[in-house]
Amino acid sequence: MSRWQPNARGRLEQAALDLYTERGFDQTTVAEIAERAGLTERTFFRHFADKREVLFWGQEALIELVTKRIADAADSASPIDMVRGALQAVGEMLADRHDHARRRQAVITANPRLQERELIKLASLATAMAEGLKRRGVPQPAAVLTAETAVAVFKVAFVRWLDADRDNDLSQVIGGSLDELKALTSGA
Amino acid sequence: MSRWQPNARGRLEQAALDLYTERGFDQTTVAEIAERAGLTERTFFRHFADKREVLFWGQEALIELVTKRIADAADSASPIDMVRGALQAVGEMLADRHDHARRRQAVITANPRLQERELIKLASLATAMAEGLKRRGVPQPAAVLTAETAVAVFKVAFVRWLDADRDNDLSQVIGGSLDELKALTSGA
Repeated sequence: MSRWQPNARGRLEQAALDLYTERGFDQTTVAEIAERAGLTERTFFRHFADKREVLFWGQEALIELVTKRIADAADSASPIDMVRGALQAVGEMLADRHDHARRRQAVITANPRLQERELIKLASLATAMAEGLKRRGVPQPAAVLTAETAVAVFKVAFVRWLDADRDNDLSQVIGGSLDELKALTSGA
Repeated sequence: MSRWQPNARGRLEQAALDLYTERGFDQTTVAEIAERAGLTERTFFRHFADKREVLFWGQEALIELVTKRIADAADSASPIDMVRGALQAVGEMLADRHDHARRRQAVITANPRLQERELIKLASLATAMAEGLKRRGVPQPAAVLTAETAVAVFKVAFVRWLDADRDNDLSQVIGGSLDELKALTSGA
């Protein structure tokens, strides 16, 4: 078998999601994922460290993206506008992954260990945004407060996006959720 | 040894925190905690299911408290006022536990597994508040958005409280953080 496999990564990801959905995450082995994708285990491990990474490999790109967007935001932008831009960029990144994201979420919801991993991912996202805001001169505690709130809004918007039909736009849902938050807090 | 031990629970908690701080959570056994407290392992297990529960037994009380406060809030209260009241009640509950909370937090920060457990606890708190708001007729997504944001604010306020000197009032820090959030989002 040649080393190079057309779209091996995508095929492995698809096979893994299929198996996690059919059997559950814990009941699926790397050997089975490779077999379903018509590839070898060795090929699997060239793309993913383990079967959990199939679900979480996007985390680094996510953190890089929000970090870059906050670094590149206009000097005149308020902290909340900086995170709005960063989260909307995430929304654009995920725009054509609606079906994938929905299936992935169902696998995670079914498994407490994966739910914990997802919470850690979101906590890392909050930390990255807080660090980015601090580098832009946002003082404490505004930086952490803005970042933690942004992740709270993202969580809610993400679920709304998954629950809606696929033509829904995550970036818009995020913007709408931030606007709602503003309305909710202004009544405080 | 008689079954009844004056303040066994408090002595066990103190001994556990001392040992977790000195040696680390993973390096401490229940036998050592009991010995340090001058009690038996059997007494330990009458009070705590395991050594982790010494750090997390307050979770149920926390969730009961926020649930009750939201249920009892005035009909005229806005969703954000309902969670403000609930979180400030938590602040009052913890008022005389500043030293304990600070030591507990240091143990948790030093251990990734305990950090995960803490994230799960906060996620449960958000779920409980969202459920409470729904029972009060707050529609979706406002209920979840308010609850997730409230937990974000609580996280930030809690750290600020721990970092400040002991005379600081957690309930006031929470109120101040909610006011700051309002100011931050109003600029969006």
